[in-house]
Amino acid sequence: MSQSLDIAVIGATGTVGETLVQLLEEREFPVGNLYLLASGESAGASVPFKGRNLRVRDVADFDFAQVKLVFFAAGEAATRSFAASATGAGCSIIDLSGALDASEAPSLVPEANPQLLEGLVPPYSLSSPSASAVALACVLAPLKGLLKPQRLSVLANLAVSSRGREGVNELARQTAELLNARPLEPRFFDRQIAFNIFAQVAAPDAQGHIALERRLGAEIKQLLGEPGLRVAATCALAPVFFGDSLAVSLVAEQAVDLAAVRECLSRAPGVEFVEEEGDYPTAVGDAVGQDSVYVGRVRGGLDDPCELNLWIASDNARKGAALNAVQSAELLIKHYLSKILT
Amino acid sequence: MSQSLDIAVIGATGTVGETLVQLLEEREFPVGNLYLLASGESAGASVPFKGRNLRVRDVADFDFAQVKLVFFAAGEAATRSFAASATGAGCSIIDLSGALDASEAPSLVPEANPQLLEGLVPPYSLSSPSASAVALACVLAPLKGLLKPQRLSVLANLAVSSRGREGVNELARQTAELLNARPLEPRFFDRQIAFNIFAQVAAPDAQGHIALERRLGAEIKQLLGEPGLRVAATCALAPVFFGDSLAVSLVAEQAVDLAAVRECLSRAPGVEFVEEEGDYPTAVGDAVGQDSVYVGRVRGGLDDPCELNLWIASDNARKGAALNAVQSAELLIKHYLSKILT
Repeated sequence: MSQSLDIAVIGATGTVGETLVQLLEEREFPVGNLYLLASGESAGASVPFKGRNLRVRDVADFDFAQVKLVFFAAGEAATRSFAASATGAGCSIIDLSGALDASEAPSLVPEANPQLLEGLVPPYSLSSPSASAVALACVLAPLKGLLKPQRLSVLANLAVSSRGREGVNELARQTAELLNARPLEPRFFDRQIAFNIFAQVAAPDAQGHIALERRLGAEIKQLLGEPGLRVAATCALAPVFFGDSLAVSLVAEQAVDLAAVRECLSRAPGVEFVEEEGDYPTAVGDAVGQDSVYVGRVRGGLDDPCELNLWIASDNARKGAALNAVQSAELLIKHYLSKILT
Repeated sequence: MSQSLDIAVIGATGTVGETLVQLLEEREFPVGNLYLLASGESAGASVPFKGRNLRVRDVADFDFAQVKLVFFAAGEAATRSFAASATGAGCSIIDLSGALDASEAPSLVPEANPQLLEGLVPPYSLSSPSASAVALACVLAPLKGLLKPQRLSVLANLAVSSRGREGVNELARQTAELLNARPLEPRFFDRQIAFNIFAQVAAPDAQGHIALERRLGAEIKQLLGEPGLRVAATCALAPVFFGDSLAVSLVAEQAVDLAAVRECLSRAPGVEFVEEEGDYPTAVGDAVGQDSVYVGRVRGGLDDPCELNLWIASDNARKGAALNAVQSAELLIKHYLSKILT
């Protein structure tokens, strides 16, 4: 397409924001002027884009009327503070923070629920859901008609990069200290993450759930269009730098036709099905750096013919966040470019 | 008790066998003569016991008529080769390898199914089940009456020590190579385990299940006396040296009374319930080196009042294997010492 869009990216210095800017370049997204924004402390840094270093500005000083599309790739607080300013200025927004619920900004995974785009009215507000929901939706949406899922149990072993650069740095620092037999001093995390697994990635609410688990449950039901699905979700933190690993157990309405599941996954868009006997995908070595969600260990139940078990590996920062947001924007402008530009 | 037993430990040089010998000393088990045995290549090593170094002998040359009780802490092959010789010589045996099915050697977890001991006939053959089954049974057996569990989904993140010393050494070596920016050369494992998670701990069968997953399913049903329980099990391998972490989701017959669950877990033998708000147990820092199974993150379902979710951390080599075997032997001699000695 020959027309281009003026765009802002909030959170451009984070792990997700930086990947998002790279993807805008790699995928030749029709970018006119690109404004990179961050909250006060990160303003002043620079991020490379198309051979130039773009200076990161303070979002608090930004006039949203200068752009047509805004990616919110910072935390929930930034979205809460600035989303209304952006939409008030007529911008379409894609939020990656989870701050907006489905009534404000429904979740889109282009491989799973592209029909969401039908009948939207401007300014367009979309959410790019949590990385685990993106991965699950890519795998489960094509199976939905076949399985009619009743119950979904997900254990997500999340990478420390889900906690940003500080999570990555802390795992590296703790690991080096332990290997050098120095005393371990947790800083960013409150305990040892090196060679250990945390049962949760944040503080729980009064019912014991963490916000990301509630978000994952709500998002997957919306993405699959299955409001009655019963979801059990545990988000644990693993000593892995990049890439999420999900163990999934699903109860279908009827006995699962495993051959049909395999056939369906081998054709699913955005999905790489590892089907060689005895092989399986992992985060590192398969999913990280890739544009596909990897799935393997497709098997039935030990006791229940209605059960389906899967293992999913996905790049949390790229496929699970930045790429899904950019693909969502691509789909949005494919439908509505003329309305976005007006 | 003043009487003592002559005992053999097969696999005395492995991670579990060595811990088992330590526990016989620590717990003042009534050991008469102790024979440490291993297969050819490990014979000749020595293992400390009560201030002496005991020489490890070749199991192939051993006369089982010299002992009354044999622990099989080597692999399945050793149990298959020598269990019949031991029982044929009148020995009681406790197998930790999983080689014998429930009809040959039923699984015992003293906290979960002590009633198994009623009505046994000599020579006594018992199994100490897989480490994950021990941990699950300690936590779920006291809840069984309350929950009447219908469905159980378990993701076990196993430590590399579940693959023995070679697993431990390989994780350490790979991690050091990566931190020193040297090229990674997998040796014991076929790919990178450092900062990664494997979807399975061994090769799957034609249905895609690994043997340990089938074993875990069968064991937990036998231990809980719930043959109709539908179990979904995934055994993954995590970059953790010692200690297993289990995410458990259970569907009960009726709405779960969470207050009653908490009350029950706080009194359960062999269980340490981490109930402080926001806190949770982990393998390293809590469970490793301890005699209890740690449980936390007790919470209901996001969508289903009949659901219960838990996180369990347990020392796979100690509580999950060596200690359970020794506790099983203690319970066995409490019931049947006179018959074992004749």
